[in-house]
Amino acid sequence: MSKAATQGTARRRGRRPGGTDTRAALVEAARAVFTEQGYDGATVRAIAARADVDAAMVNHWFGGKEGLFAEAVLKLPFSPKTLVDRLLDGPEEDVGERIVRTFLTTWDTTGGGVFTALIRSITSHEQAAHVLQDFLVKHIVGRVVSTVGPDRQELRATLVASQLVGMGLIRYVAEFEPLASTDIEAMVAAVAPNIQRYLTGDIT
Amino acid sequence: MSKAATQGTARRRGRRPGGTDTRAALVEAARAVFTEQGYDGATVRAIAARADVDAAMVNHWFGGKEGLFAEAVLKLPFSPKTLVDRLLDGPEEDVGERIVRTFLTTWDTTGGGVFTALIRSITSHEQAAHVLQDFLVKHIVGRVVSTVGPDRQELRATLVASQLVGMGLIRYVAEFEPLASTDIEAMVAAVAPNIQRYLTGDIT
Repeated sequence: MSKAATQGTARRRGRRPGGTDTRAALVEAARAVFTEQGYDGATVRAIAARADVDAAMVNHWFGGKEGLFAEAVLKLPFSPKTLVDRLLDGPEEDVGERIVRTFLTTWDTTGGGVFTALIRSITSHEQAAHVLQDFLVKHIVGRVVSTVGPDRQELRATLVASQLVGMGLIRYVAEFEPLASTDIEAMVAAVAPNIQRYLTGDIT
Repeated sequence: MSKAATQGTARRRGRRPGGTDTRAALVEAARAVFTEQGYDGATVRAIAARADVDAAMVNHWFGGKEGLFAEAVLKLPFSPKTLVDRLLDGPEEDVGERIVRTFLTTWDTTGGGVFTALIRSITSHEQAAHVLQDFLVKHIVGRVVSTVGPDRQELRATLVASQLVGMGLIRYVAEFEPLASTDIEAMVAAVAPNIQRYLTGDIT
């Protein structure tokens, strides 16, 4: 990790060459700018400037702002677009299942540490909550809801978020048993119908 | 608030007389001991000793350990026993409704600040998570589930907790709209059937 990226005040003259150094600098700069500006407020140009690299490198390494956010902040192993495509690939009545299975498979793999950091940042900095709303609710859950939700799509998206965030909080942060160590398929059976109701059921 | 209670190291000689001073000292001592020992580990004797008052005053002022915890830590306007009795008073198929309505009415009234502090303490101190599991999951939701839940009662209790904690986090901490300002009855219509399924439905 470069000193320019971590110290912030020290700036190198001229642009970095492309390479793993550039990639790490962009990840570091992205974390800072997303936290300060929110997801929608942050621009690729601002992140690239902070990292002291050419903005074209963001597309080269991450496929754009979404991919950079997913990797830098959420440490997801896939891009948001890939994720949404995967969640919507299959019968509409099984979207809830795919959401719960993907959520748990992803965070179980990282040991829940990233999720814990995310929740901690929500409770301590208001801006982090905006980032999460912009990104997770609007750009991931929101896109799924806008495809399958019959009405009140924004409320449905925040209801889905409430169950997912709560499940993650109980499983990874508070570690309440038996939920914390219930296997993924048993969790899918228990939780997916509730997510599915929020997505496509009658919520009035 | 007494110096002995807040500073911890300074101890007065002899016991306090009964009165509002005693009450405040007990609340202060209770917060410290519950945080250090967890709900089940904390004893009325230890709390009374820390506050430098007679243990009988805990029963006098708070009706016992549960009432002290509810008032000192959760700042609930009712005792846990009263709460559980109220949640179970009525048709079994409406318990979910009563839980969601009571949860939102209670925390909406306090402006969500207590809930936010609770979540913050969960993410920063492991012990606070134990307190919440002991108390909210075991002694409140757990008691409701042990009356109405057909099987897997412990998993059902943590599933209910996951939805309630998530709903509180989205509504009071992250304040995602439109969930954050949806009125209580609309929230009951949206969320209660999901809570009810966790309580009495098929979750396998």
